[in-house]
Formats: sequence, C-alpha cells, structure tokens
Amino acid sequence: MNDVLPRRARLITLEGGEGAGKSTALATVRDCLQADGANLVVSREPGGTPLAEQLRAMVLHASRQDDADERLHPSAELLMVFAARAQHVAEVIEPALARGDWVLCDRFTDSSFAYQGAGRGLDMAWLADLERRVVGFLPGLTLWLDVPVALGRARVQRRGGVPDAIEREQDDFFERVHGGFAARMAADPQRFARIDASLPLAQMVEQVQRAVTSYLQQVA
Amino acid sequence: MNDVLPRRARLITLEGGEGAGKSTALATVRDCLQADGANLVVSREPGGTPLAEQLRAMVLHASRQDDADERLHPSAELLMVFAARAQHVAEVIEPALARGDWVLCDRFTDSSFAYQGAGRGLDMAWLADLERRVVGFLPGLTLWLDVPVALGRARVQRRGGVPDAIEREQDDFFERVHGGFAARMAADPQRFARIDASLPLAQMVEQVQRAVTSYLQQVA
Ligand SMILES: Nc1ncnc2c1ncn2[C@@H]1O[C@H](COP(=O)(O)OP(=O)(O)OP(=O)(O)O)[C@@H](O)[C@H]1O
Ligand SMILES: Nc1ncnc2c1ncn2[C@@H]1O[C@H](COP(=O)(O)OP(=O)(O)OP(=O)(O)O)[C@@H](O)[C@H]1O
Ligand SMILES: [Mg+2]
Ligand SMILES: [Mg+2]
Repeated sequence: MNDVLPRRARLITLEGGEGAGKSTALATVRDCLQADGANLVVSREPGGTPLAEQLRAMVLHASRQDDADERLHPSAELLMVFAARAQHVAEVIEPALARGDWVLCDRFTDSSFAYQGAGRGLDMAWLADLERRVVGFLPGLTLWLDVPVALGRARVQRRGGVPDAIEREQDDFFERVHGGFAARMAADPQRFARIDASLPLAQMVEQVQRAVTSYLQQVA
Repeated sequence: MNDVLPRRARLITLEGGEGAGKSTALATVRDCLQADGANLVVSREPGGTPLAEQLRAMVLHASRQDDADERLHPSAELLMVFAARAQHVAEVIEPALARGDWVLCDRFTDSSFAYQGAGRGLDMAWLADLERRVVGFLPGLTLWLDVPVALGRARVQRRGGVPDAIEREQDDFFERVHGGFAARMAADPQRFARIDASLPLAQMVEQVQRAVTSYLQQVA
C-alpha cells in the first residue's frame, strides 16, 4: 500500500485553496511551456470530460446542510470526485502523455487529500488507496499556490459571482484544507514548488516562471 | 480487512441478473411483510435518493463502447454506484432501520460484486473495502432470484422497452455476473435464500413466500 507511485514528468498540476491564484498562474505556466515549444493540453479537476464536468456540477451544487432535502455525504463527494478523475485520467491525461504532450491541470489528486481528506476528515489511507487504484501516478511538478485563508477568501469575494457549495464552507474548513496541502508537500517536497501567493501579482508570476523554468531545465 | 460485517435483520434485499424477476418478487415480499404488520420502506439501487437516481441515470445511459465520444470506465462506474449507495444508506436505509422499520431493496451491494466485480473484472478486494467503508453492514436476508442468462434475457425482451447500457452487454458478461452472485452466496450461504426463478411465476412466488415466512419466524 505504501509503494511510491511513479511520476509523470510531463504532467504539471496547480494546487491551492480558494482564490489562491491557480487559474491566474495557469496562464503563466502555459506561456512558459508554449515558449518551450511543447504540445500542451490544459485541463481542470474535477472535470475535464463531459461526464466528469457533470459530476463536478453535482458536487459543487449539492447541499452540505444537515437540514437540506438531500445532503451530499463526505464519502459520496469523495467517490464522485474520484469517478470524475477516473474518466479524466483515462480519456484525457493518459492519451495526452502517451502522445508525448504536456498536460497542465488546474487541481488534481492533491486537492482530494486537502478537501476530502483534511477538510472533511475522511481516512487518508482510503484516499491513498484510491489514488493508487484510480490514478496510479503523480505529477512531475506541482505548484502549490500558498495563500492565507483570509486573503484567498477576500480575492474570491472581490472577483464576485455566486459562491458554490464549497466556497460557502467556514474558515475552519479552509484552515484544514490549507494544512492538507502543507502535509502533502511535506511528504513529497521534491515534487512541489511552493509559490508565495500572498505576493503582488507580478512577483507571484515571477516565482511561477522561475519554478517552471528550473523544472524544464531539470527534466530536459 | 476480512472482518465479517454485522447483519441488519430488518434489511431484505433482492438480487439477480436481468429479468430474473426481482421486481416481481419484491411485491410478494412486500405483501408478506405487511401482512406481518411491519412498517416498510421499499427502495432500489442504484438509486433511492434524488442524487443517487441522477447517478443511476448517468451509469445506465453512458456508453461502454471504446469508439464512443466518452466511454464510462469500469472504475468510474464502480465509484458512481458506491457514491449513490453512500447517499442511499445515509439518507434512507440507516434512518429507516434506526426507526425500527423494515427496508426492502431491489438490488444492493451484492449487485456491485456481481456486475462491477465479476462482470467488469474489478478487484474484489477493492469492492470489499468499499463495502466496509461505505456500507458497513450486510442485509439480514438476500433473495437471489437465480435464472439462466438466456431465460432472463428472453423475459426482458418480452417485457419490451429500449435496453439500457447494461442490458446491451453480451452473454459472456451476464454469465460472469451470474457466477458473481453464485460466489457471493457460496461465501455466505446463511444470508441467502436461492429462489429458482426459472419456475413458472406461481411456483416462484411460493418459494419467495416460504423463504420470507421462515426468515420472519427465525428473527421473531
Ligand atoms: N498574487 C495576487 N495578488 C492579487 N490578486 C491576485 C493574485 N493572484 C490572483 N489574484 C486575483 O485573485 C482572484 C482569484 O485568483 P484565481 O481565480 O486565479 O484563483 P484560483 O486559485 O483559481 O481560485 P478558485 O479556487 O476559485 O479557482 C482573481 O481575481 C485574481 O485576479
Ligand atoms: N417466474 C417467472 N416466470 C415467467 N415470467 C416471469 C417470471 N418472473 C418474472 N417474469 C416476467 O419476466 C419479466 C422480468 O421480470 P422482472 O421485471 O421482475 O425482473 P427483474 O429481475 O426486476 O428485471 P430487471 O433486472 O430488468 O429489473 C417481467 O415481464 C415478469 O413479469
Ligand atoms: Mg480557479
Ligand atoms: Mg426490476
């Protein structure tokens, strides 16, 4: 059960809490890779295929309230997220990597450890088993956009829009999520580049560029 | 991992292949229980809650063809079926049993072992782990409506309607499913009553009545 999973060098993932700047950083990583001449598939999780996007919508719009008509239970949430991931890996990620393309993904398995594991308190051994059975590999590089919970929340509010069911969670949930990302990085520091996402945008972008450039040199 | 799960005496499940007669037998079991004065909740799987029914529809209408726009992968199918079951157990089955009601369910976990395990060839240890984590108990009584694959198929065809994605599978799939039910019964013979569902309807109904009556005397 504790085998180390193989890394896929051409899979780069962006991770972090709400409003950390993942989608913003994604554009920077994309530009770095394209400047390098890479064929690139950009995707996101949960989602990335029609069926997985349908599961994403169900997860994001379900209720977490005990007094709701139907509450989405933590283990159902976990299983739906991994069902979406099974589709995404088989239909998008594996074929792209098999062609030699690069894949850049906004959230991946680390988010399940952070949100469903640390956030909802589900058994980490269960998550590790699902990671092994459903995915079977790790990204080559994971950029963790690390931002204090309050700052991420302020950015999401400034961005506007109707908050989804996850965004409506309380701060203690997001503190656990933050701790979940920190623990994943501590367990596998080589795979991660921690980006200080509390920095002003230009400096954050510079950190992302440096991390990606150094990774590309390393795997070249 | 190999702990025996506790039984819930007031949960009765109906299992069997396509067209075995589960839904027909369900009416007989319902009548027996109601004649006995039981408060009864009747349900089905996959399904039994709005969210679980949505997952059922996705599973039954997804494609299994490699050349389809998006093929439903076996592990995604398994995870969606167990996500639906997590909702069904938490929202319907557990509350009913906690009230002292009886629950009668058209398919339950044994169907996952038969269809996703034996049928699709997924690892039985994974299914056992999901059964333990997501459900955590066994029915008190399971009626296995045992019918030869060809006869079940002929009945479904006679019944008419558009076949769903499971019903469009080939006979070798259904032979494996049949073997999956037989193996589940062999591993836990006390929980099962095997009904000879190739008998004419009146005789099958009589077998069901006898099995339920004898079970009710045993648990009284
Ligand atoms: N370093 C930064 N400084 C200031 N604002 C930022 C910074 N990074 C991102 N933002 C802004 O904060 C908001 C959230 O950023 P973004 O959408 O990239 O975060 P995200 O991690 O993708 O969020 P979500 O979890 O909602 O997908 C955006 O309006 C973005 O322009
Ligand atoms: N013992 C029997 N003899 C003859 N016909 C039967 C018998 N049992 C059921 N049938 C008929 O066969 C058809 C299938 O039965 P039923 O719908 O109960 O099966 P099922 O196991 O619920 O099928 P499904 O897997 O599609 O839900 C129905 O038309 C039913 O009336
Ligand atoms: Mg984003
Ligand atoms: Mg039926």
